[in-house]
Amino acid sequence: MLEQDIRDRIQKLVHPFCITKGERFRLKDFDPGDTGGMTLDKAQGAELVQLGTKWLAEEQDMLYAQDRWSLLIIFQAMDAAGKDSTIKHVMSGVNPQGCQVFSFKQPSSEELDHDFMWRYVIRLPERGRIGIFNRSYYEEVLVVRVHPEALKREKLPSQLVGEEIWDERLADIARFEDYVSRQGTKILKFFLNVSRKEQKRRFEERLEQPEKNWKFSPSDVMERKFWDDYMEAFEKAIQATASKHAPWFVVPADNKWFTRLVVEAAIVDAVGSLGLSYPKLDAAKQKELVAARTALAHERS
Amino acid sequence: MLEQDIRDRIQKLVHPFCITKGERFRLKDFDPGDTGGMTLDKAQGAELVQLGTKWLAEEQDMLYAQDRWSLLIIFQAMDAAGKDSTIKHVMSGVNPQGCQVFSFKQPSSEELDHDFMWRYVIRLPERGRIGIFNRSYYEEVLVVRVHPEALKREKLPSQLVGEEIWDERLADIARFEDYVSRQGTKILKFFLNVSRKEQKRRFEERLEQPEKNWKFSPSDVMERKFWDDYMEAFEKAIQATASKHAPWFVVPADNKWFTRLVVEAAIVDAVGSLGLSYPKLDAAKQKELVAARTALAHERS
Repeated sequence: MLEQDIRDRIQKLVHPFCITKGERFRLKDFDPGDTGGMTLDKAQGAELVQLGTKWLAEEQDMLYAQDRWSLLIIFQAMDAAGKDSTIKHVMSGVNPQGCQVFSFKQPSSEELDHDFMWRYVIRLPERGRIGIFNRSYYEEVLVVRVHPEALKREKLPSQLVGEEIWDERLADIARFEDYVSRQGTKILKFFLNVSRKEQKRRFEERLEQPEKNWKFSPSDVMERKFWDDYMEAFEKAIQATASKHAPWFVVPADNKWFTRLVVEAAIVDAVGSLGLSYPKLDAAKQKELVAARTALAHERS
Repeated sequence: MLEQDIRDRIQKLVHPFCITKGERFRLKDFDPGDTGGMTLDKAQGAELVQLGTKWLAEEQDMLYAQDRWSLLIIFQAMDAAGKDSTIKHVMSGVNPQGCQVFSFKQPSSEELDHDFMWRYVIRLPERGRIGIFNRSYYEEVLVVRVHPEALKREKLPSQLVGEEIWDERLADIARFEDYVSRQGTKILKFFLNVSRKEQKRRFEERLEQPEKNWKFSPSDVMERKFWDDYMEAFEKAIQATASKHAPWFVVPADNKWFTRLVVEAAIVDAVGSLGLSYPKLDAAKQKELVAARTALAHERS
């Protein structure tokens, strides 16, 4: 369990970036360069993140032992906002036995023959596990919305494709998250909010450093032309799907140390709220344990 | 890359426990209490393991970037030999984005309607990933062999169930591992070799410590009656399936620090032998990068 004053400080850090009601959400109110007034250097930031990961590793053990709750952590962002490196820094140290990461790329033709949620639903975390979606079903109202030709590949009956399709999808997603959270899945959604300018700087870095070249795809530069369309799609998605049980965190992403700190804090806060403990056995189970103890004591060898 | 003298020391540590040819393998030649003549204490052992994990975390990044090789790590053992805790200690620190752990329990009825390898095959690691099987298809020649009534649940046509079935299964497994290794999957198989006496001590510990109670199942005690049958099944499995490309490691498991050290060293050695590096781009790709750099430089905003 977290001490109350630590919890208070964590919540204070996370609160400005947490959206649980979408109506009045405007992306322009959120500064990608924000560092919450903190003046830590990178090393101090990393140290705090490590503290959180260590705590999380212990809690995860109880999550796994209880086998009741699961955690679904969604990362969405423009390219180079730091999804991969945030996952690496926030989750390394956690036991991979209880943690599953899925990165969603282009859908396969088998996946395109199903409803748009299918490939995500079959990869939801099992009870007792932390599941991380590196991109998610939100791509269906982001990249597909910005490039509607992608929608054609999904082979929907034409009668079902109208102007309302994006609002319908968003409503279906919100309902789905209602359902899943009622099944014991805690949902956290992170939008890593990087600025267009910082993205350019990071692309240039990838182009200059040979060991980062492999991460770069020329089409990433082309996508920058659609920046405003993407921002509008993100805003609408957050407006329609932010809720208490499936909050969005609009995390400033121009400073990596701060991104990681906010993500870590939000996860720690969510897991802390579950009040996890090791399972207590009921009377029948206790009795079995006593019998087992006796059997062991009376073994011949 | 590992320096040569470190590699030599790692290989020297691992070599006595590595089986690449099964014919002359006898389990009785392996002492569960062996510590390889090392006189480290727990803390020193843990420090070495951490060094290995740190190195592994860096190599894993290249494994993922290359997207060519994959690593399949199999853990088999009697209960309480330390499978879960070894996975936790050896793999925590590695980026979960490139690491998948599957724990196999009782098969579902859907799984029982397929061939015995099916549920394992569909969970093999993708290229660029480390896949860990906490138990594996070897259960099919271990627990199923010791309790043949489990074979009945697999609904095989009766004409196909003869006395040869275990040898046939072992041959099929060996061939499967040939095939998979030719596809770029490096296979490492760990048998955590705990003594019957130490298992008893650990069961008693689980019974005494309330936070460990949940891990205990009364049927685990009953299985101790079949100890010799299990050892025989393990011996036969190792004899039939140890090979250069899919070696077995018979890891002394009465001392956890030593178990973890040997497992860590064997993984480091195997990954080191791949000679990983970040992918180098070909001329066409290089040209694309130059074009992207120019496009970025000429952006209006």
